[in-house]
Amino acid sequence: MKPIKHHKHKTGLPPGSLVFTGIERSHQIGIELIKYSPQSYKQEITQNIDDLNIITESPEIHWFNLNGVHDSELIGKIGEKFNIHKLVLEDILNTHQRPKVDFYDEHIFAVLKMLVYDNATKSINSEQVSIIVGNNYLFSFQEKEGDIFELLRKRIQTASGKIRTMGTDYLLYAILDIIVDNYFILLEHLGDEVEKYETELIENANKDILNRIYYLKRENLLLRNSVWPVRELVSQFEKTDSQLIKKKNIIYFRDLYDHTIQVIDNVEIYRDLLSGLIELYYNNTGNKTNEVMKVLTIISTIFIPLTFIAGIYGMNFKYMPELEWHWAYFGVWGLMVILFLLMICYFKRKKWF
Amino acid sequence: MKPIKHHKHKTGLPPGSLVFTGIERSHQIGIELIKYSPQSYKQEITQNIDDLNIITESPEIHWFNLNGVHDSELIGKIGEKFNIHKLVLEDILNTHQRPKVDFYDEHIFAVLKMLVYDNATKSINSEQVSIIVGNNYLFSFQEKEGDIFELLRKRIQTASGKIRTMGTDYLLYAILDIIVDNYFILLEHLGDEVEKYETELIENANKDILNRIYYLKRENLLLRNSVWPVRELVSQFEKTDSQLIKKKNIIYFRDLYDHTIQVIDNVEIYRDLLSGLIELYYNNTGNKTNEVMKVLTIISTIFIPLTFIAGIYGMNFKYMPELEWHWAYFGVWGLMVILFLLMICYFKRKKWF
Amino acid sequence: MKPIKHHKHKTGLPPGSLVFTGIERSHQIGIELIKYSPQSYKQEITQNIDDLNIITESPEIHWFNLNGVHDSELIGKIGEKFNIHKLVLEDILNTHQRPKVDFYDEHIFAVLKMLVYDNATKSINSEQVSIIVGNNYLFSFQEKEGDIFELLRKRIQTASGKIRTMGTDYLLYAILDIIVDNYFILLEHLGDEVEKYETELIENANKDILNRIYYLKRENLLLRNSVWPVRELVSQFEKTDSQLIKKKNIIYFRDLYDHTIQVIDNVEIYRDLLSGLIELYYNNTGNKTNEVMKVLTIISTIFIPLTFIAGIYGMNFKYMPELEWHWAYFGVWGLMVILFLLMICYFKRKKWF
Amino acid sequence: MKPIKHHKHKTGLPPGSLVFTGIERSHQIGIELIKYSPQSYKQEITQNIDDLNIITESPEIHWFNLNGVHDSELIGKIGEKFNIHKLVLEDILNTHQRPKVDFYDEHIFAVLKMLVYDNATKSINSEQVSIIVGNNYLFSFQEKEGDIFELLRKRIQTASGKIRTMGTDYLLYAILDIIVDNYFILLEHLGDEVEKYETELIENANKDILNRIYYLKRENLLLRNSVWPVRELVSQFEKTDSQLIKKKNIIYFRDLYDHTIQVIDNVEIYRDLLSGLIELYYNNTGNKTNEVMKVLTIISTIFIPLTFIAGIYGMNFKYMPELEWHWAYFGVWGLMVILFLLMICYFKRKKWF
Amino acid sequence: MKPIKHHKHKTGLPPGSLVFTGIERSHQIGIELIKYSPQSYKQEITQNIDDLNIITESPEIHWFNLNGVHDSELIGKIGEKFNIHKLVLEDILNTHQRPKVDFYDEHIFAVLKMLVYDNATKSINSEQVSIIVGNNYLFSFQEKEGDIFELLRKRIQTASGKIRTMGTDYLLYAILDIIVDNYFILLEHLGDEVEKYETELIENANKDILNRIYYLKRENLLLRNSVWPVRELVSQFEKTDSQLIKKKNIIYFRDLYDHTIQVIDNVEIYRDLLSGLIELYYNNTGNKTNEVMKVLTIISTIFIPLTFIAGIYGMNFKYMPELEWHWAYFGVWGLMVILFLLMICYFKRKKWF
Repeated sequence: MKPIKHHKHKTGLPPGSLVFTGIERSHQIGIELIKYSPQSYKQEITQNIDDLNIITESPEIHWFNLNGVHDSELIGKIGEKFNIHKLVLEDILNTHQRPKVDFYDEHIFAVLKMLVYDNATKSINSEQVSIIVGNNYLFSFQEKEGDIFELLRKRIQTASGKIRTMGTDYLLYAILDIIVDNYFILLEHLGDEVEKYETELIENANKDILNRIYYLKRENLLLRNSVWPVRELVSQFEKTDSQLIKKKNIIYFRDLYDHTIQVIDNVEIYRDLLSGLIELYYNNTGNKTNEVMKVLTIISTIFIPLTFIAGIYGMNFKYMPELEWHWAYFGVWGLMVILFLLMICYFKRKKWF
Repeated sequence: MKPIKHHKHKTGLPPGSLVFTGIERSHQIGIELIKYSPQSYKQEITQNIDDLNIITESPEIHWFNLNGVHDSELIGKIGEKFNIHKLVLEDILNTHQRPKVDFYDEHIFAVLKMLVYDNATKSINSEQVSIIVGNNYLFSFQEKEGDIFELLRKRIQTASGKIRTMGTDYLLYAILDIIVDNYFILLEHLGDEVEKYETELIENANKDILNRIYYLKRENLLLRNSVWPVRELVSQFEKTDSQLIKKKNIIYFRDLYDHTIQVIDNVEIYRDLLSGLIELYYNNTGNKTNEVMKVLTIISTIFIPLTFIAGIYGMNFKYMPELEWHWAYFGVWGLMVILFLLMICYFKRKKWF
Repeated sequence: MKPIKHHKHKTGLPPGSLVFTGIERSHQIGIELIKYSPQSYKQEITQNIDDLNIITESPEIHWFNLNGVHDSELIGKIGEKFNIHKLVLEDILNTHQRPKVDFYDEHIFAVLKMLVYDNATKSINSEQVSIIVGNNYLFSFQEKEGDIFELLRKRIQTASGKIRTMGTDYLLYAILDIIVDNYFILLEHLGDEVEKYETELIENANKDILNRIYYLKRENLLLRNSVWPVRELVSQFEKTDSQLIKKKNIIYFRDLYDHTIQVIDNVEIYRDLLSGLIELYYNNTGNKTNEVMKVLTIISTIFIPLTFIAGIYGMNFKYMPELEWHWAYFGVWGLMVILFLLMICYFKRKKWF
Repeated sequence: MKPIKHHKHKTGLPPGSLVFTGIERSHQIGIELIKYSPQSYKQEITQNIDDLNIITESPEIHWFNLNGVHDSELIGKIGEKFNIHKLVLEDILNTHQRPKVDFYDEHIFAVLKMLVYDNATKSINSEQVSIIVGNNYLFSFQEKEGDIFELLRKRIQTASGKIRTMGTDYLLYAILDIIVDNYFILLEHLGDEVEKYETELIENANKDILNRIYYLKRENLLLRNSVWPVRELVSQFEKTDSQLIKKKNIIYFRDLYDHTIQVIDNVEIYRDLLSGLIELYYNNTGNKTNEVMKVLTIISTIFIPLTFIAGIYGMNFKYMPELEWHWAYFGVWGLMVILFLLMICYFKRKKWF
Repeated sequence: MKPIKHHKHKTGLPPGSLVFTGIERSHQIGIELIKYSPQSYKQEITQNIDDLNIITESPEIHWFNLNGVHDSELIGKIGEKFNIHKLVLEDILNTHQRPKVDFYDEHIFAVLKMLVYDNATKSINSEQVSIIVGNNYLFSFQEKEGDIFELLRKRIQTASGKIRTMGTDYLLYAILDIIVDNYFILLEHLGDEVEKYETELIENANKDILNRIYYLKRENLLLRNSVWPVRELVSQFEKTDSQLIKKKNIIYFRDLYDHTIQVIDNVEIYRDLLSGLIELYYNNTGNKTNEVMKVLTIISTIFIPLTFIAGIYGMNFKYMPELEWHWAYFGVWGLMVILFLLMICYFKRKKWF
């Protein structure tokens, strides 16, 4: 996960210029259309925007899901057909958008990040999801191919829950709910890693674990940045007086808001825990240095004076009376043993052992 | 106490799906019903929800206390009988809920954490308590078995205080008051530990105490997270215009609010104190390293030059005039003693002793 | 000064239960009554609450000062006589109350901390003062015996200033003013200590000073906690529309508010200064370790190579030509002196001296 | 980039005194006038303000771009001609202005910083841009020569986008958009550097990289200071009820606001990342010191005791029985090898290798 | 500059008691009166308050400037004459006042700090300035003698700018503007010092520079405390509906507000820069310790093993075959040189050189 970037090559272009700013992709964008009403369900896949015709007065709900936003021409055509402001289209193409929601008279535009934990690389994959909600239609634009809305599609198909009987506002809620739920999965992965490293740190603090913790801290920092604006975004649905959000459904957005707050709470907790782990690492490392110092000091303090004594009697002076004494050698040994024991006692009292 | 987790296995399910997300439990949930009015008191235990009949117009107050929320079917039935929104039921079953209160037309829904200090494991046990308050009924859902409302039940039975003469709002207040009072007990335990470690740290700073302090800091961090939202929760009772909270009883919630602020104040103080203790530990450790360094330096500085002198006269050159001198050996001893004393003076002046 | 504690033994009791929560005291509570009007002044001491009779329509102001709150029965009787809510009485008895003010129809209840610097123990003594202000009466409850209002009493007796011509609101202001003024005295003591340690630290950084600074930091932390809520408390008097506070006297509370802000400003400054002192201590200590390291390194670096040379010529090989040379011994001395001087130069250039 | 400075030599002068406070420049200020309407485009360059005549009722838009503000006389004349308040003129001349916008009846005055990354010096160049917007005219004052509005001029000339069909408010928006877009370019450079140093730090932590990181941190700090006020500035356009900003164009300022927030978000992220890098550096450095200590300790701990043994048998006592033993020398070698191996094992177990 | 102190000797006195709390001064306070109207200018100096007579209906503006506030009797007389509230007079005499403004019906009272950089002592001198503004009179009270308003007086005398044609509100603005401008000068001095030490730190980090940086940090902390309240103070002029501040002049106070914000911005920047410098110092010091450690380790690691070898062949065993070998001595030298080179390589690879 990288800090959000912007469109270097767009500076100076008129606003509303449709330029795709993400990683270049070449596959053709598939458009999936799901039409449903309480009684009916129909799903079709197309790549030709001209095929799509909405009878605006149709009682059925039309959900268009595009798995790619790198075809600015296609996005442009959609914009024309559904009368969407150029700035909105620009925001859809710019894959480094900050999460936000804008309320227009005929539709609502929301953009946020789908975050998925990649087990292979142990990192977070980020994908931008833009949503346009009208009276009886909803566009969802995914940045990458993939089937993140699979479960939701099944729920509609099997008419599980009340989704078929509700309007586009409920469908929007369902999509946002899936995205926020994915944040929780991410947090669980983060939590598992934090817990794992916590145990490892106590047993064996090494530099690799520290680097991994710094990495997690950074991931968490970027996660934090994707999640905080979602709070504002969801709270605007609660407070809006847009006619597209029915009063009786606001309770669902309130529930979503509670979940978002919980995500943010946990992000903040992990932030503190990770800082605590780094502190703990330094504590353990510091303790180790201390221990090393003590060994050095003990060995030096014991042997340096003894070596000095040995040095004394290694001198070659002609007249050194002790050298002639018969038991002098053993006497020196005795002296050394006594010195040794005294120093051991000293260290014991100092609690260096 | 763990960071709040969420329902990994629920992602993609329709909202309002009743799935229990806590630790699996198998005991049958007991429902305790306490019916009381100023004149009467009746207590019965049942496990069959169909037994319970509320005459909504009854002047008696009905308090249903369930010691377990792992039976989603039972919770579902209650929801049907008392016309409770599916999202509320979902929140009751999800034991990782953030403390909050929702005001509905016919009832109030509050959820918060009961925190109890476990003397055996020296850790904090957390239990979710959900409450639904209607005109003449109150449901309390405990996550675990246990008798945390024992004292309250006795107060009702013995009609101590004015609880029998008051409505469900006062009963709700009494329950919240017990929960907040338990936070104080927790804080006292925390405070006792902090004080204990403070004394120990000055006498004997070791790694175990530090790890324990880090543990306390973490507990305090999670405690903080459970308590902060309670402030918002209680303040909403003060400001509500719900008809279920009588004007004259708002003074009790104001009092409760004062207590909550006091809890938060203390949590913040312990946070600062614990950070201070960690700093103090590092200070003491640093001082110890310093002391070790000094011993090493003193010993080395004294004996290395002396050993050098001994080394000089241990050389085997043919022509070394000093070796022949009669008192040379004693002269060298004299030199060494003088050097020794000079260095001792030096260290004294540097205040290394 | 300890972190604020709560009533462990009260959990589960009905609210409004009158239980004293402070340190047990046994002396009988004395009640001092001062009656005054612009023309008259009368002072009596009693221990019997039944003696006290207020003619509510009396033009005189009645100030009851109780030096103790450990007699819950007495407090209960006062509550009955003056129609005071049970929760207020409970707050008076609970000596760990957070500073606050509550406005009722017939009286105002304020509680805050009197903080006095104890010169003997060099610590802060904390005492809770509760005040109930009615139309023509004022109750002040001190937690401990002592005569903190001595000067105020004299001002009333001698009719100095306009206190005799003003109502109970002005009397309340005068009491609060004394309490806030005591905060300033406290801050001066704190400031004097900070200044003293600042000088000492530069001259002689030792562990005792550091521990004292940590102590001061803690005192300041707890002081901060007692003072911050007073700001809110006083500002409420400025904004209140209670009839008990006359419009023309609000200017006095505004002045008091300015003083409180100034106290808080200074508390925050001392907080920063104390953190700075701790940083300075570590700086000085670090410098000392550095110095010790340098001495060790200089001595080792000079003598280890010299000792090596001496060791070489202490070897007993049969064929060592240098040993036979006549001036070899003096040559070795020359070599050593040169090495010694080179190393001294090296250290000089490295600026280790 | 330097902290914003002020006009030392202006203290005491009456407000509205027109004194240029930037670096002295001597080139004559060129005034470029671009006149355009949907149908027409005309561009002229002049240095004589008297040449410029605005027919205030003219349907054409007049954009005056001045590349220099060091000629206070010229600015004064413009002020007179267009009836601009002296304080506004003073703000234009003072090149250390904080970004802000002021709404007057007849015009809007905005001032902000153009920040450009200088590839040669690897630092940020800052330039103040002041803008005055009236009904059909817009003045832009650049501090330095240069052609930052080149692309915009082309867009007008080629009538690309809708700029020719819109009013001065849209022109203002276009200018602000260019400035904010430049912040993104700056952030990308910053991001590239951060990423580069991140990799380098892990491979080879040296002091130069650290100094460069401190430099980046400082740049970021000053950048932050230039960008934060822009948020407030842009948000005021969104909320204004000035007649000069058309309702239907507020959507553009809202878009600009989103971009500004994104810039601020990234500045904050880089701030955290840079702090993290510094922490990482110290971690790596600390590890290195640790390693050095270990080598020292291992060598000392191994050889000091061995040297002691050699010293023992270097003594010259007359009666040392071991010296006479035939295999004693080899026995001592054996003893030393065993000691050596024991110590190696000890270090292995301590994981010092 | 000291933390703000309070009036120890005032506790218990009735509010409004006029006691001077600053440093005792003995010179007689001079009162300077400047009378001016668009047509006239008159300046007189007096020390007798009774001389001063304001014809309240006079069209001339009267500016009284007092250079001292230590004569409480004089201040008392002024208060009586101009009907100023006792609490205001008390605030004038208390030279440790927090900057603030109070709006009364007939006049405005403002108090703030004049801060001047003293080049001799390289410290900040603080002086309290109190201002009372009425309809056609303005009192300014300086704490110390000195001529800080010299330039302003000249502007009035020479009728430079429009000051003579404006009312007392503009005069007030002019005084505040001078005070705020002095903050900028202060900041420039601070900035110069910061820049100077930044360079010095990189070249030669010593303890004196660090102490000086700590000193600057402290100055900045206290400066911050004097400046923050000024922001609130000035913003109140912008928002006031006092009749003494004319609507058309509010633009000047808005300008002043911008300047104040800029001062605060810079104070905050210097705060961060100073913290950065301290960090940099520790970084450099840490690097030095590291270097010292390396020298010690290199010397020890090279010579300790070599000395050991020399020690071996200094042993006196009877049977040591090597001693007899003819080239053994030179062989040992060879061995030592090889060991020496190996270790040099090791250190090179470890990049310790």
